[in-house]
Amino acid sequence: MALLYKADPVRGEQWQALFAEQAADIEWRAWPDIGDPRDIRYLAAWQAPDDLETLLPNLQVLFALSAGVDQLDLGRLPASLPVVRLLDPGITQGMCEYASFAVLGLHREMLRYRQQQAEKHWQAHRLVPASKRRVGVLGLGLQARQILASLQPYGFALSGWARSQHRIPGVECFAGAEQLPAFLGQCDILLCVLPLTEQTQGILNRQLFQHLPEGAALVNMGRGGHLVEEDLLAALASGQLSAAVLDVLQQEPAAPDHPFWQHPQILLTPHIAAMTQPESAFGVLLDNIRRHQRGEPMLGQIDRKQGY
Amino acid sequence: MALLYKADPVRGEQWQALFAEQAADIEWRAWPDIGDPRDIRYLAAWQAPDDLETLLPNLQVLFALSAGVDQLDLGRLPASLPVVRLLDPGITQGMCEYASFAVLGLHREMLRYRQQQAEKHWQAHRLVPASKRRVGVLGLGLQARQILASLQPYGFALSGWARSQHRIPGVECFAGAEQLPAFLGQCDILLCVLPLTEQTQGILNRQLFQHLPEGAALVNMGRGGHLVEEDLLAALASGQLSAAVLDVLQQEPAAPDHPFWQHPQILLTPHIAAMTQPESAFGVLLDNIRRHQRGEPMLGQIDRKQGY
Repeated sequence: MALLYKADPVRGEQWQALFAEQAADIEWRAWPDIGDPRDIRYLAAWQAPDDLETLLPNLQVLFALSAGVDQLDLGRLPASLPVVRLLDPGITQGMCEYASFAVLGLHREMLRYRQQQAEKHWQAHRLVPASKRRVGVLGLGLQARQILASLQPYGFALSGWARSQHRIPGVECFAGAEQLPAFLGQCDILLCVLPLTEQTQGILNRQLFQHLPEGAALVNMGRGGHLVEEDLLAALASGQLSAAVLDVLQQEPAAPDHPFWQHPQILLTPHIAAMTQPESAFGVLLDNIRRHQRGEPMLGQIDRKQGY
Repeated sequence: MALLYKADPVRGEQWQALFAEQAADIEWRAWPDIGDPRDIRYLAAWQAPDDLETLLPNLQVLFALSAGVDQLDLGRLPASLPVVRLLDPGITQGMCEYASFAVLGLHREMLRYRQQQAEKHWQAHRLVPASKRRVGVLGLGLQARQILASLQPYGFALSGWARSQHRIPGVECFAGAEQLPAFLGQCDILLCVLPLTEQTQGILNRQLFQHLPEGAALVNMGRGGHLVEEDLLAALASGQLSAAVLDVLQQEPAAPDHPFWQHPQILLTPHIAAMTQPESAFGVLLDNIRRHQRGEPMLGQIDRKQGY
């Protein structure tokens, strides 16, 4: 009985050491040295190889080594294969740190001050109390709820939107397409942490921006595919949006002539909001393997119809 | 019985409206129209006028409109005059927002990413878990303790230093000159929120930086006078320090040729970490006036010997 690892080789060595130490009954194999493919019961991967059914005839679970699974072409995977995403507490913590940094930075006009520093201009701007700053989160999954919890102590006016109705103490919750405009209309700072699906592809577009209060700010911690990049540029140019913090792009790394690089109203980071860390992720993955071995439900299993 | 206001005239109008609405028994006077000086019992000011004893013979309390009082020359004020600093919850909140922004930004290497964006360079750096990032606060007064409380949920390893011994749950406390090197030796990120006194003038200097771990980062939210600016430049150049977030300078605004403006390892903001806001400060000031009228102790009264 073996597990096949197919992702970054450097982190693979960390994973391998953890398995050797704490789960010696599970044999470690690292792509492309798969050995006898019939031994392989578990695949832990960022992206899946083609022809999975033929290649690994005894595969029982695909463990994605990421919180989102949009990089996997679910339609091409065997229909009966359970796909499990990685609910790494290290990822959630990274997302909370990044979200707090981005929201506090936008709240305190740090992009304006970044520009002033570059222009050698010393000028204070009026400070809006956090209680009057309305922060809304698109998506109310586990990460979004943790992000909201980490913003709560600062006293922001918090809200969230998801397809289905949620109840979160201290957070005004909006649901479904018909409540989306009302949600957007009260977001001074909008954070996107949606999963990327057919429905959410390109959701951050001109039409959505028009529902936001004039001068609102955007944080995209979802995927590059959520944002229509030319619509953001137009909204920043017109003043409909005042600033954006982006951790993801349609194409990464951005091309050298991409207009976001040197845009004074955009803070761009190279997809670093959260990174899977074997130290914190190993326990979660092993717990799911043990659950599977005992025939118990695994945590983070994907609904193949919804795509997340 | 009148109160004389001597500070920013724009915010003075907000203060005046609040007094008219909620404390009509206290007559409002705004500098320089002081009227009959014998009426004036209270002075609410950023800086005090000269010859206070002669100018306002019946003055009973000087209310500083700031959290620190280093801008007042305490030695030139009548010895028996109570001086009270402003414990505005809005100031504390602003300090917590700024400190969280600065610490999260340094923790997540946002100055490096700022530079990479300017240079069109897409590269992720290793993410250190917050539990392994040691954040130390110089000063353990009210603001410092609130700042530590707002950093606590992120899981940083927290410590603090003050002249006298403190006990704060979840924070390793160091005290006195002899424990300062041990404190500094374990600070990956050092925040200064000390009051400015003769003892703390220039405390952020070459000698102090040498006690920090190599590559540590500095946040100065105290006063410009705490920092020996040329020592910071040398420490950044040698690699002893990796980055600094500065809200205050020796001379504000900075001269156009000041080397901090365009230093890639320095994030400079124009003294905006916290601003007194009449909305939140009025209640605190009025409460102290009522306490004084009832003969009760006021909150935030300065120890004239210690200077804070």
